[in-house]
Amino acid sequence: MSAYDELMAFQRETEALGQIAGRLGWDQETMMPEGATDQRAEEHGAIANVLHARRTDPRIGDWLDRAEAPDDAGAAQLRLIRRSFDRTMKVPAALAAEIARTTSRAHRVWADARATEDVAAFLPMLDKVVALRREEAAALAQGGDLYDALIDDYEPGGSGAELAAMFDAMRPRLVALRAAILDRPQPKGLSGNFDEAGQLKLSTLLARTFGYDMDHGRIDKAVHPFSSGSGLDVRITTRTAPEDPFNCFYSTIHEVGHAAYEQGIDRAYLLTPLGSGVSMGVHESQSRIYENQLGRSRAFTGWLYDQMRETFGDIGVDGPDAFYAAVNAVRNGYIRTEADEVQYNLHIMLRFDLERALIAGDLQVGDLEAAWNDRFAADFGYAVDRPSNGVLQDVHWSEGLFGYFPTYSLGNVYAGCLYKALTRDVPQVNERLAKGDTGPATGWLRQNLQQFGGLRDPKATIEHACGEAPSEAPLLGYLEAKFGELYDL
Amino acid sequence: MSAYDELMAFQRETEALGQIAGRLGWDQETMMPEGATDQRAEEHGAIANVLHARRTDPRIGDWLDRAEAPDDAGAAQLRLIRRSFDRTMKVPAALAAEIARTTSRAHRVWADARATEDVAAFLPMLDKVVALRREEAAALAQGGDLYDALIDDYEPGGSGAELAAMFDAMRPRLVALRAAILDRPQPKGLSGNFDEAGQLKLSTLLARTFGYDMDHGRIDKAVHPFSSGSGLDVRITTRTAPEDPFNCFYSTIHEVGHAAYEQGIDRAYLLTPLGSGVSMGVHESQSRIYENQLGRSRAFTGWLYDQMRETFGDIGVDGPDAFYAAVNAVRNGYIRTEADEVQYNLHIMLRFDLERALIAGDLQVGDLEAAWNDRFAADFGYAVDRPSNGVLQDVHWSEGLFGYFPTYSLGNVYAGCLYKALTRDVPQVNERLAKGDTGPATGWLRQNLQQFGGLRDPKATIEHACGEAPSEAPLLGYLEAKFGELYDL
Repeated sequence: MSAYDELMAFQRETEALGQIAGRLGWDQETMMPEGATDQRAEEHGAIANVLHARRTDPRIGDWLDRAEAPDDAGAAQLRLIRRSFDRTMKVPAALAAEIARTTSRAHRVWADARATEDVAAFLPMLDKVVALRREEAAALAQGGDLYDALIDDYEPGGSGAELAAMFDAMRPRLVALRAAILDRPQPKGLSGNFDEAGQLKLSTLLARTFGYDMDHGRIDKAVHPFSSGSGLDVRITTRTAPEDPFNCFYSTIHEVGHAAYEQGIDRAYLLTPLGSGVSMGVHESQSRIYENQLGRSRAFTGWLYDQMRETFGDIGVDGPDAFYAAVNAVRNGYIRTEADEVQYNLHIMLRFDLERALIAGDLQVGDLEAAWNDRFAADFGYAVDRPSNGVLQDVHWSEGLFGYFPTYSLGNVYAGCLYKALTRDVPQVNERLAKGDTGPATGWLRQNLQQFGGLRDPKATIEHACGEAPSEAPLLGYLEAKFGELYDL
Repeated sequence: MSAYDELMAFQRETEALGQIAGRLGWDQETMMPEGATDQRAEEHGAIANVLHARRTDPRIGDWLDRAEAPDDAGAAQLRLIRRSFDRTMKVPAALAAEIARTTSRAHRVWADARATEDVAAFLPMLDKVVALRREEAAALAQGGDLYDALIDDYEPGGSGAELAAMFDAMRPRLVALRAAILDRPQPKGLSGNFDEAGQLKLSTLLARTFGYDMDHGRIDKAVHPFSSGSGLDVRITTRTAPEDPFNCFYSTIHEVGHAAYEQGIDRAYLLTPLGSGVSMGVHESQSRIYENQLGRSRAFTGWLYDQMRETFGDIGVDGPDAFYAAVNAVRNGYIRTEADEVQYNLHIMLRFDLERALIAGDLQVGDLEAAWNDRFAADFGYAVDRPSNGVLQDVHWSEGLFGYFPTYSLGNVYAGCLYKALTRDVPQVNERLAKGDTGPATGWLRQNLQQFGGLRDPKATIEHACGEAPSEAPLLGYLEAKFGELYDL
């Protein structure tokens, strides 16, 4: 066997083990009996150790030195393997283990602190997590920017300065749009009897409608919806809330976006580095364009309105226009994950600026809550009422996920670019969405983006699909047009 | 760390990975989307390779040479680790890999052959499987008996000659009992509307009634019921058939017996060699005593009769006596897994004698079908009508599982011994079963057997619980008394 073939065979087994580890996480959130927690922690640790040993196997370095790529895809495989190997080898094993131990503890401390609204109880742990991730970033950056080194794990090639420039351009326009909307009368909300069985039935219909392949996936309930797995086994979860069927439906469509990306990748890349989504930002572009630009469009909500009436009878709003307004209602709220298209990115930018300052050493953990509250008041116009609605709201920092938040907004920006290109290339998109046919849209995304998996870098992936470099302009234009019309601005 | 502690830490991680591999199998039978088969095969292969590498890690030999057990349990741990390590190291890696490849292919060939009733299509593959397992047995036996070396994998210390003597003592009495019963009038069977929801509800009630701990387990549907996992996460499956609710109920009780054993093991042994059932035979003793001696007793079926009437209304038999007779009906039939308590062991002995002769080289694969059919006619009094009801009936041989079949009957024999000791020690067992209270019985089993896991060898495990060496006499006495009374012999 050639060095390339040996490396790829080794990698293939590592990818298969990675899929097993991922499915263990799926099982934990959907199927695991409650009393199994302690044993599961050991199981997770064991498979994580196996994966770490494989990812730091010195033979990878030897193979990489000798491997010759058979073609362009092979060259991309080698590039991704090299990238991952170099990153892994830069972080001392002891540090990696301490980060795993500390974030596992910090996660529990955070959950307790959030339940008791006790910021002080969490801060010492957060301080440790920040210190460890800074240490890791220093090992990775080798003199470069610390935060960039962390972003790179989620968004290869991402840059804090570039994101900051993009977000700074977006923020004033979003703050202004939000304020203008909230000066206008609120649309009427839904009311009715949204039984769980009906929600789940319609949720499955929506998943199928958006092209989710149930022969290579399944839908279960979970507290926090997610998508899991690559290749031939890509599962999603959803949730139901008795009074808020949109939560279920748009969670499902969002996760179908993630899953369709994984399911849409060229099968020739199965169980290889090219066989998964290329970055968190590009992943989020798929979930967001499915959920928002397509799923919350006037065209598609017209079809959904009929489905909901058929399933639930009277839903408290009359006609597709009122329904469209209800789907896209903009309301005050503290919680990122419940935010609408207009306000969502403001929540992200707040977190991005604060975590970037924490990693840079420009903000101390002790000052974090005040900084959060000041910024929230500035952008949203009212005060945070309690820590669980503010600085203790998200799980990410307890898990050490610094550099992750901006990929959510980057995904929205990318979705804006893709939607612009899609409507340019496929003029009949909305006409078909109005009939519940997402085919022209999802087919275009599969053809121009999803099938390529990790073949190109994230930005190049978007640029290839759109025919131009990504920018925040299309998203802002889309939001201002859509909500300007909706709210008569 | 001492050599003992290092070895146990290594072993603990191996056990955790083994649990993951087992749960992957559970997922495949219960949750996996159909289209995921190919990817799943690679995942299975990857985790199997990891486990094999760990189980043949030369450090185990070093640790074993230097380890000092801290106590009796520690000595038992070392004994089990040594046993497993020696066995694994005796089989050349290339042979182990070829067996895995061949049985995987043979399994598919067998399934096709069974579907098309084509024995000839399966025999060449079976011939290869037998040859490979004989080769493995020779490596393991090192001059000793080949079949014993294979049994040892499922029933440590088991001996073909000893089992043959036991079975030869049982066979004529079972053949005679069966013949006498089938001369008598048949009891009336059930009739009614046994909807799936009702079956599953009652199945869950039965599981709880027999002490299945749902906080450390769960029940799902599968084509073939099984129990899976050890320690804090022990899952079972069941199935439903519209016209045969007993299939569902007694499958569930059977699997609960297996699961209760795993759940009942001392938590101090979690993720260690002592933390799983000690052998297939002892495992089957638990599933069988739950299912048969307890679950099919006059006392318990009286309670079940009331539950069934409450769930399904009219079930076509009047009164607990008629119900008890229906539960324990003895009928002609070709299929082992559908056999009653009286005939089940005859099915096993047939397979045992044939596979022992195959491994000894006294029977050729080409003569297997004729041998099967002759023996079946001799014991059951009528001819096999087609291969899927005869020699192609079971999956085991295609998977190379020679030496496995006798553990089923050994389990029945052990269950007979345990039931004798239980009713001696706990006279109120039946009085309480009649109220749907299995506590005295399952408590005795947990106290006297389940909690010890792998602490003692299989036979010593039974002897410790019963206070005397195991023998077939209690089972035969129990069957002759129970069915003699039922059929008025």
